[in-house]
Amino acid sequence: MAAVTSPHAGGSPRTSGLLYEELAQDLSALIAKGTLKAGDRMPSVRQLSQQRDVSVSTVLQAYLLLESRGMVETRPQSGHYVRGSRAPAPLEPRTPRSSSQATRVSVSDLIARVYRAARDPSIVPLGAAQISPALLPTENINRRLAAVARTAGGVGVAYDPPPGCTALRRQIARRAAEWGVASSPDEWVTTVGAMEGLHLCLRAVANAGDTIAVESPSYYGILQLVESLGMRALEIPANPGTGIDLTLLELALRQHKVKACVVVTNFSNPLGALMPDDAKRELYRILVQRDVPLIEDDIYGDLCFGEVRPRTVKAFDRAGIVMLVSSFSKTIAPGYRVGFVAPGRYRERVERLKFGHTIATPTLPQLAIADLLDNGGYDRHLRRLRRALASQVARVSEAIATHFPQGTRVSRPEGAFFLWLEMPPGKSALELHARALDQGISIAPGPIFSAKARFSNCLRISCGFPWSDVIERSITTLGRIATEM
Amino acid sequence: MAAVTSPHAGGSPRTSGLLYEELAQDLSALIAKGTLKAGDRMPSVRQLSQQRDVSVSTVLQAYLLLESRGMVETRPQSGHYVRGSRAPAPLEPRTPRSSSQATRVSVSDLIARVYRAARDPSIVPLGAAQISPALLPTENINRRLAAVARTAGGVGVAYDPPPGCTALRRQIARRAAEWGVASSPDEWVTTVGAMEGLHLCLRAVANAGDTIAVESPSYYGILQLVESLGMRALEIPANPGTGIDLTLLELALRQHKVKACVVVTNFSNPLGALMPDDAKRELYRILVQRDVPLIEDDIYGDLCFGEVRPRTVKAFDRAGIVMLVSSFSKTIAPGYRVGFVAPGRYRERVERLKFGHTIATPTLPQLAIADLLDNGGYDRHLRRLRRALASQVARVSEAIATHFPQGTRVSRPEGAFFLWLEMPPGKSALELHARALDQGISIAPGPIFSAKARFSNCLRISCGFPWSDVIERSITTLGRIATEM
Repeated sequence: MAAVTSPHAGGSPRTSGLLYEELAQDLSALIAKGTLKAGDRMPSVRQLSQQRDVSVSTVLQAYLLLESRGMVETRPQSGHYVRGSRAPAPLEPRTPRSSSQATRVSVSDLIARVYRAARDPSIVPLGAAQISPALLPTENINRRLAAVARTAGGVGVAYDPPPGCTALRRQIARRAAEWGVASSPDEWVTTVGAMEGLHLCLRAVANAGDTIAVESPSYYGILQLVESLGMRALEIPANPGTGIDLTLLELALRQHKVKACVVVTNFSNPLGALMPDDAKRELYRILVQRDVPLIEDDIYGDLCFGEVRPRTVKAFDRAGIVMLVSSFSKTIAPGYRVGFVAPGRYRERVERLKFGHTIATPTLPQLAIADLLDNGGYDRHLRRLRRALASQVARVSEAIATHFPQGTRVSRPEGAFFLWLEMPPGKSALELHARALDQGISIAPGPIFSAKARFSNCLRISCGFPWSDVIERSITTLGRIATEM
Repeated sequence: MAAVTSPHAGGSPRTSGLLYEELAQDLSALIAKGTLKAGDRMPSVRQLSQQRDVSVSTVLQAYLLLESRGMVETRPQSGHYVRGSRAPAPLEPRTPRSSSQATRVSVSDLIARVYRAARDPSIVPLGAAQISPALLPTENINRRLAAVARTAGGVGVAYDPPPGCTALRRQIARRAAEWGVASSPDEWVTTVGAMEGLHLCLRAVANAGDTIAVESPSYYGILQLVESLGMRALEIPANPGTGIDLTLLELALRQHKVKACVVVTNFSNPLGALMPDDAKRELYRILVQRDVPLIEDDIYGDLCFGEVRPRTVKAFDRAGIVMLVSSFSKTIAPGYRVGFVAPGRYRERVERLKFGHTIATPTLPQLAIADLLDNGGYDRHLRRLRRALASQVARVSEAIATHFPQGTRVSRPEGAFFLWLEMPPGKSALELHARALDQGISIAPGPIFSAKARFSNCLRISCGFPWSDVIERSITTLGRIATEM
């Protein structure tokens, strides 16, 4: 086994974000050089921590990164191993070409079909943006809900009118500090999931006929929402690495009267793009200059693979133009339907719209989640979840590289659980979707992520379920169909 | 004690709806004639049941009716007594004059003020449409939620996508038969309370700029919703007894391009009007002829004081133009946020809009309510709740008759828990509202029930909390202020 020497020997343990990347680099160099070969056991976490004089969590982080790159695999109760020979990492998908026209969205029919498939438990779930309940703190949160239901009495059955549960908003404000947002509980409004949050924010700042700038490809729920409100989506190309193209956005803002901008800034859906801090700062600058509100969807921010939870654009917001939207649907329990919004200067408007939307967010689910955040080991759970997702994404990514036709590009997300595939030109994702469904496999075809039904040769594959033979076979099948097409 | 002879002696017990009214009439005749005097104990339920050869529930129903008319009071563990001398029953409020113009609604500010007051627990709650948790099956439903949370596992944390929980929709379809609606579970969609249901239905059939016919006075939540969607409310006068004026509605439909009609058909809010079956049939005829969808809000239908649960317009719907909306917020637990819709021919549209609204209704609250409906003694609870509300309404009504200025008219609802007061012309409900708030008492002033801020001398008083000294003093205070004004 290779001993890995430390450039920081002698110091006290450090946990800087850079350190684990450095360590990962050193380790991958050993693999690249052949010092460590396929199947070799990697140094144990404790060994490395002592050798490099870094914290255990830094080592774990480094392994996580290597795992997400497909270089290392974790075997339960055993340790980390160099992965077997694999296909060369595929290229990343390209930024789509710019589009100069705002479009009336009409993706509903397409989505409805995909959505129906996602509800069928007999179908392999590579389509929907769902995480397996096995990876969520299912027993923990259900037990807490049972406990609050037993003790809440009249409070449990009563309305909890906007802005919603105080205990929960206190926990959210506390955690938001981690995303760079210094806020008081009063600045938050709880919602029925992030979807209601997005809906309320859009309605608070725009009306039917207005133009909304969205990244492209974009989460189909946002496109469907824009469509159903009679607004127009102006698609701004996004890069799989860094997200929405700011030059093109600025250009679009000069050419169009844009009423609001909706962006998933951390691990976007479907691209998995993570906007760097500088890009976030720049996005804020561009928008505040023109007084265009930003609806920032941060629903995946907690699912980073790296050690440092990324910040939000809201962190740079002094003017109150950023409306931050998120929920616990990807980290705790989608079925609890608890989300939250910091609507900045539009808070009062959002609160009033909330009344006419659903009057109040369900009382007991909010209390249960507040309790879990306060004493439930949420951070420990998050670390486990991040590790699981990173590993699943790596596994699926590798299988795609092996089985999909040559020339297929795949995104390399650093968080969440989506892979965005760009197949060679001419391959139809809609055909793949239809033929895969016949085989009992659901995917999300590219055109549902665009108001113009673009991305005809692209698709999103979700990695929210633990790696299994069924998933492996499904990827193989998908690759075979894609090759045949 | 007077013996009450039965016109049906010798037959087997009967429970016809007419029978209890007959019995109530006979008993009130005895009081009117002075045979039974103030303070006298009325015949016991068992006695009467035997004497008249009717069922116990018929006798209870008769007493409920007398109680709701303020003639009889129930003393716990003791029986029914003739009530003390009371002010003569006040006149019912008048039907408002017709208005020929559709108006852009702007009631939000007014409502926000009333609403904020309703959230303050130190304020006597005669304003909001809330029922005391003490009258709801609070322990029962919370216990059931705890039980399903403990056993649901992954199902409990997962999305329950539209149309929502099958077990619950089965229970709803079963109960809907009582409202005259023969339906399969597939025809129902669960929602986050009735408010989301109303919202989805409105959006399914109308757009910004469209005209919506509403009864007047009308629930402010509906007016606020219409306003927030940029639609116009066309106010059709309603009668405190029989609801929306069908002649005026028909006239309005001839004069305006009405896209939908929203009516609370059973125990409307704030009037408490109950549309007779003939009027319901006629309303359907008028609308189906012009192909105008009806959004029927039946949220109070289960809270009838009489023995027979009133039917819905949906019962007469063959064409699928009626969208029936209701919830469990007034009978089980508002904080659970579980409602339901039978959207008729607009079902698919409602389901799709639901996705962009809140994606799904909370999973475990639906399961808990399904369980309560299935095995929780819901009917027994409803009987108790109806009796309590009838008695509270009677008590408050009598206090109003005693303390409010002469010439004040009061509604005589046969269900739900609102009283609608029309004070003498010139008395300002907004002034009363402001001065009452200073005394820690919340009421709902008339102008919030109109898009045109009409009903300046009217107010709604809620009777959702058990009669108490505090409520008695509050009515006295309100009456004093109203007299002074």
